[in-house]
Amino acid sequence: MTKAVLSALIRPLVEPRLPEWVEPLWFMDREQALEMAPDAEIGWFDLNEKEPMVEIARAATNLKWLNSIYAGLDFMPLDLLQERGVTVTNGVGINAITIAEYVVMLMLAHAKGYAQVVRAQDRHEWLMDSPGKRELAGERVLLLGLGAIGKLIKTRLEAFDMKVVPVRRSGGEGSLRPGEWREKLGEFDWVILAVPSTEETRHMIGEIELAAMRPNAVLVNIARGDVVKQDDLVAALQEKTIEAALLDVTDPEPLPEDHPLWGLDNAQVTMHLSGRAQTKMFQRSADRFIENLHRWHKGEPVEPQMDLAAGY
Amino acid sequence: MTKAVLSALIRPLVEPRLPEWVEPLWFMDREQALEMAPDAEIGWFDLNEKEPMVEIARAATNLKWLNSIYAGLDFMPLDLLQERGVTVTNGVGINAITIAEYVVMLMLAHAKGYAQVVRAQDRHEWLMDSPGKRELAGERVLLLGLGAIGKLIKTRLEAFDMKVVPVRRSGGEGSLRPGEWREKLGEFDWVILAVPSTEETRHMIGEIELAAMRPNAVLVNIARGDVVKQDDLVAALQEKTIEAALLDVTDPEPLPEDHPLWGLDNAQVTMHLSGRAQTKMFQRSADRFIENLHRWHKGEPVEPQMDLAAGY
Repeated sequence: MTKAVLSALIRPLVEPRLPEWVEPLWFMDREQALEMAPDAEIGWFDLNEKEPMVEIARAATNLKWLNSIYAGLDFMPLDLLQERGVTVTNGVGINAITIAEYVVMLMLAHAKGYAQVVRAQDRHEWLMDSPGKRELAGERVLLLGLGAIGKLIKTRLEAFDMKVVPVRRSGGEGSLRPGEWREKLGEFDWVILAVPSTEETRHMIGEIELAAMRPNAVLVNIARGDVVKQDDLVAALQEKTIEAALLDVTDPEPLPEDHPLWGLDNAQVTMHLSGRAQTKMFQRSADRFIENLHRWHKGEPVEPQMDLAAGY
Repeated sequence: MTKAVLSALIRPLVEPRLPEWVEPLWFMDREQALEMAPDAEIGWFDLNEKEPMVEIARAATNLKWLNSIYAGLDFMPLDLLQERGVTVTNGVGINAITIAEYVVMLMLAHAKGYAQVVRAQDRHEWLMDSPGKRELAGERVLLLGLGAIGKLIKTRLEAFDMKVVPVRRSGGEGSLRPGEWREKLGEFDWVILAVPSTEETRHMIGEIELAAMRPNAVLVNIARGDVVKQDDLVAALQEKTIEAALLDVTDPEPLPEDHPLWGLDNAQVTMHLSGRAQTKMFQRSADRFIENLHRWHKGEPVEPQMDLAAGY
């Protein structure tokens, strides 16, 4: 029997389908998990707080495979996990569909000035002209990050007759390499940030990049707040050197009540809700875990596996 | 020389490209147009008001071809035009791209509860969960009307992995015929009205059709307000027998300030703005007219031609 220490939150979706070779230990809170951790060969240590997850992972000295519903596990002790030879599967892709849908919604809503239409309805006022008059059709998109989410964004935007240019390490037809996109920023109407959160992507958009964008450029961030130098962005929005920013993520989160981003007409803050705008997250995560258990038993690779050195 | 009586509004876009065989007469208002009308062989009589357009068309006794930027010309004296053998080209398709974009925006915004996110930002409030949790992916759409707009809606929604079933006279793989959709209403999560406004489509959605829809059904109307029996719809929304209605068009327009639709949480009124959410309408209409002039001169069919008996 292989001992698996698992969050009780996922129990209803996982327990009925566990293979016989798994001995599950269900924990309700941090204390229980810490007690069980040293026995765990397989662990699913998700809690709402990051700190206890780190603690539990440190205590799991016999761990071989760590699973999580979270896509971004950069807060975990990755060095230690790598040292111990732990395989880590994260939640990358679990939220991809809803996040891709959210991105297209944000872009369309900006293009048509939909927020102002909502407010007009609240006033019972019949607008005589559209507050927004952009069409997605024909516009050019720079897509930074072509992971699970980026790929879904690309196919959706292409259906609107947009020209989408992704940035990826391997380059390839119609795409740019990491060293090439900065000098081309002025060619794009939309810049979408869908990169993983790493040292490399931290603050990748700042004053210089914002200054290189077109006056009609719209920045869309569904990656992490710290991918953008937020003060520089606020300045660009206040001076209207770019048209708008559509921000599912901010730095910090939640955004303080008196932060200038809240009140800017050309900033839309959507409170990291994009991944939560679905009901299937837990089901998808459970399905994937069960499938991975079968692979694990057969000695096949589980997925998606994190590259612990790269941090995503 | 062929005399063409044309609205001065379109003059800057058309005049520089007119072929030599056309003698343009530009009118600024109803009076000028009425005076010039009897000479017109080609007419582009668009004004902001419907009544004078009807009057001018009646006065144009030598008219051979009538052009308009408007898609819905059912208010014009179609019987008379048919009697006189007038060819009519309308604006069908001019707005198709932006309307299709608007439909997808409305569906996504409803799915994710975006209106509530906009209001939360106005209050500087960080929401902890998404007010809407639907995904378009996997849901089923009944698309009534597969004209220029319907076709663009279909390809866009299919990119979101929706199952789109259009209704068209000719039937065909994956579609329903006009007599078949009513009994299948309960199979769809979304019902989109993109039909032309005719006697046949007037009030095609009423109490019976609404009662046949699923509790999670969302009705999207970008056709005409009178395609729906609006009082029946208000009742269904108040009783929440369907989930929501997304209404670019209402009956009448503008909607009176005290109309119940304004205040319903599950009704989104967008004030017939969908076609106006673009800047290219006049350019597209002018381009099409110039191209049609060349066809006309060569004796080729101009397009898109209205079927005057059918009314669209």
